[in-house]
Amino acid sequence: MKLTELFTQPDPAFGQAMTALLERFHHSDDSQVPYQRGSFTHQLDQSRMPTAGISTTEYLTRLATLVPGASHLTSPRYMGHMTAPLPAFTAELSRLLVMLNQNPMKMESSRLLSFLEREVLAKLHRLIYGEGDAFYDTHMHAKDAALGVMTSGGTIANVTALWLARNRACGDNLFALYEQGYRGAVILGSRLMHYSFDKGMDLLGLGAANVWRLDTDADNRLSIPALEVALTRCKEQKLKVLALVGVAGSTDFGSIDPLPELASIAAREQIHFHVDAAWGGPTLYSPRYQGLLAGIARADTVTLDGHKQLLVPLGTGMLLCRQPDLMMTVKREAPYAIRATSFDQGRFTLEGTRPANALYLDAAFQLLGQQGYAELIEANYDRARLMAELIEASPAFELMSAPVMNLLSYRCIPPHLQGKALDEEANEQINRFNVALQKAQRAEGHSFVSRTQRAVGRYDELPLTLLRAVLLNPLIEERHIRELLADQERLGHELARELFGDAR
Amino acid sequence: MKLTELFTQPDPAFGQAMTALLERFHHSDDSQVPYQRGSFTHQLDQSRMPTAGISTTEYLTRLATLVPGASHLTSPRYMGHMTAPLPAFTAELSRLLVMLNQNPMKMESSRLLSFLEREVLAKLHRLIYGEGDAFYDTHMHAKDAALGVMTSGGTIANVTALWLARNRACGDNLFALYEQGYRGAVILGSRLMHYSFDKGMDLLGLGAANVWRLDTDADNRLSIPALEVALTRCKEQKLKVLALVGVAGSTDFGSIDPLPELASIAAREQIHFHVDAAWGGPTLYSPRYQGLLAGIARADTVTLDGHKQLLVPLGTGMLLCRQPDLMMTVKREAPYAIRATSFDQGRFTLEGTRPANALYLDAAFQLLGQQGYAELIEANYDRARLMAELIEASPAFELMSAPVMNLLSYRCIPPHLQGKALDEEANEQINRFNVALQKAQRAEGHSFVSRTQRAVGRYDELPLTLLRAVLLNPLIEERHIRELLADQERLGHELARELFGDAR
Repeated sequence: MKLTELFTQPDPAFGQAMTALLERFHHSDDSQVPYQRGSFTHQLDQSRMPTAGISTTEYLTRLATLVPGASHLTSPRYMGHMTAPLPAFTAELSRLLVMLNQNPMKMESSRLLSFLEREVLAKLHRLIYGEGDAFYDTHMHAKDAALGVMTSGGTIANVTALWLARNRACGDNLFALYEQGYRGAVILGSRLMHYSFDKGMDLLGLGAANVWRLDTDADNRLSIPALEVALTRCKEQKLKVLALVGVAGSTDFGSIDPLPELASIAAREQIHFHVDAAWGGPTLYSPRYQGLLAGIARADTVTLDGHKQLLVPLGTGMLLCRQPDLMMTVKREAPYAIRATSFDQGRFTLEGTRPANALYLDAAFQLLGQQGYAELIEANYDRARLMAELIEASPAFELMSAPVMNLLSYRCIPPHLQGKALDEEANEQINRFNVALQKAQRAEGHSFVSRTQRAVGRYDELPLTLLRAVLLNPLIEERHIRELLADQERLGHELARELFGDAR
Repeated sequence: MKLTELFTQPDPAFGQAMTALLERFHHSDDSQVPYQRGSFTHQLDQSRMPTAGISTTEYLTRLATLVPGASHLTSPRYMGHMTAPLPAFTAELSRLLVMLNQNPMKMESSRLLSFLEREVLAKLHRLIYGEGDAFYDTHMHAKDAALGVMTSGGTIANVTALWLARNRACGDNLFALYEQGYRGAVILGSRLMHYSFDKGMDLLGLGAANVWRLDTDADNRLSIPALEVALTRCKEQKLKVLALVGVAGSTDFGSIDPLPELASIAAREQIHFHVDAAWGGPTLYSPRYQGLLAGIARADTVTLDGHKQLLVPLGTGMLLCRQPDLMMTVKREAPYAIRATSFDQGRFTLEGTRPANALYLDAAFQLLGQQGYAELIEANYDRARLMAELIEASPAFELMSAPVMNLLSYRCIPPHLQGKALDEEANEQINRFNVALQKAQRAEGHSFVSRTQRAVGRYDELPLTLLRAVLLNPLIEERHIRELLADQERLGHELARELFGDAR
């Protein structure tokens, strides 16, 4: 076969094989391949590329061993991470998007798709900020405006927000801050802020240690008194507060910071107000739940993730900006690629060349509509409430917070400690028990939740190991939730015998 | 239709329509839709999402208007940007990759794909650094090692390299530098360094102005005398040199800095040596051309782009690290997601959640093999030499540098200036002429090159508008190159009449 035929001759058998592999993946579960390092690394231990290429038929043999080793995120018994099963049209759309290979960094290499990106960002801007038609008519396709930017994910969106906030405060040279009389710079938020903020402060040269993670209240929301104390300390210590971060959907509890109060404080103190709504943003589609995000429209910047509740493939984040000229503080250009007076979207993005993932969002917006998103979100939030009830009804479990969105943290209590007052030693036992339980459940492969470590008000500052369920899959039914909890009770009984044989 | 059926019921008609759209795209050219702002923004001016979702049939109507507006990157007469037409198997593989939706940030959400990523990185590490089997057996799947990281593209890879270099020098807090007696920090490289380095220095709080873009020699390579002068100035001014950057494939000329000399200077001065081989890295596959990159194995870090000469879809960059423990200087963790003692690849990446694009690389490696890449690369580099000959043979063109890889910069000379000595005024005329020519050719839509602005030795420091051809498409034949140049001669004649009617 001539090499150029690889570029011109589709191979229908390869396409059919992909369909078959996906079919098998959708109807299998994790237990097919044991979750063990040995079995995985043994399969993938080649550091040399093949000299000559192999045929697609031979490559299919390789794929047939790889795919069963993937994590089975689409199973309705996989409730562990923030990854969505995708609508079926996504598979076919991906072929188009990938083969068009448009690069929206630059008009010349994406043309209409650049404007599609701007349209998608305008729709999300309207969802969050709800400006009027005149606003969008003016700014949506203006060269000197950016209602937001596309990023590869929430991390880069949060980093971009900090970058903007810093450049608003002191440009790209930190020493300007010192000339203004400050002795350093910090960002303020709750202890449930995403770890991308630490990464961002590290990257920006401000120090990860200058992310001040403040106390939360009983509902895992940033404590306003703690914030006021921190602001006073910053003034006393001559520290510039670059940004106040509100969390709209914490990764462990789905809790939402008191956004209206934070907005007022940020306005009073003239601090950049950023809301990390990577998880929670799409709640705004739901008439029943959108009130949870009241106050978000007062944020200077908002992070969203396409690949979370917006149900598009991984690699799609966004930063939305209330003011269309905010992005000008980080504008860049390059002679061969990005012209200052162009429509090139690359003028504002942290990333350079990147895929036209706005097309995935466009398709999902059109095919699901606001009502579709609302229906899916409400069903998921209702499922979380059902799961919380089932957890609370059993002495084998302890729910760690009332459900807000569709994220729950809870833990399993070994039989000998059920119904007891739990001191520090008991909690340490329960921690060990839950680590072992999560690993055993993961290894068994029938159902899955993730685990985290957090302090929770009712046990003071003790770090607790928690199980963490994410109810995102629209195919989850009550029976799947019951099965998952039953798996945990069963495995918990076995483990308790192993771990605490004597204590019982 | 029940909403959940969108997730469970594939729609074969939608798939067939994607095939038809792609077919049409592959056999059309840019001229179908005029390259005008008005026609584009008029089509995409909705800032409201639809309330109810539309059917896939209705969405196909929308796609049928969007796709012809895309930039026709796969045409063999499109030689303007660094975007590759992709092998046909990529389309089908994308369905699998997107629907598996694995997240290699974390073992639990990618399992075997995490190890595939490490295997792919090991293969590229071997390509660049050529360590022995024992090295790869030890480090490839070790928890405390990272032979590299995947990124969304070359920009994040370059930013990550600067981040590493800075944290090696002073951690995440810049003031540590001052305590060491430095008065600032810079990076050194040629004036052809990619603009992501400015972005990186801005982001890192070190100031874009502290990217020192040094002179190049007649072959567009970093001048060693200029570098030595800069190093002396840095010592005199007590500036810390965070990194020395070597360009291996400049975006405008395909020129390669003198890597062996740079490596020796970096070693002598104990400076982090980074090579930006986003474009040129895969040259190493070619027995005929790999000598161009001699010295790259002495780099501390190397940037590669999957979506350039490695022929995988956009969104796939990499940073390779000579020493497996280098990444530990930026290691992060998070309680619910990234555990320090895990295999979680997210410990080292600037990005968080991201797609498992290593699978695209794996498929291309297996299906093309080293020989396939070598054959494609050599054919492209040979095409550039052919094009350079055709340019040199015509008085209508001026070649701006001898071809090194498969990138060429040249310009069109209007008839009345052909064969003349060109003073500043003449060069200004030629600049205007080439801007107009590139726009006219783009608007006509039959063939395409991009344009850039650079000073070139033979005209001192005058900024010149250059045409820039990228020979990446394996389907380009001699006749396409001849057609493109003929288009330019023809359009040039018309434009010269318009612009310089009097002068002729």
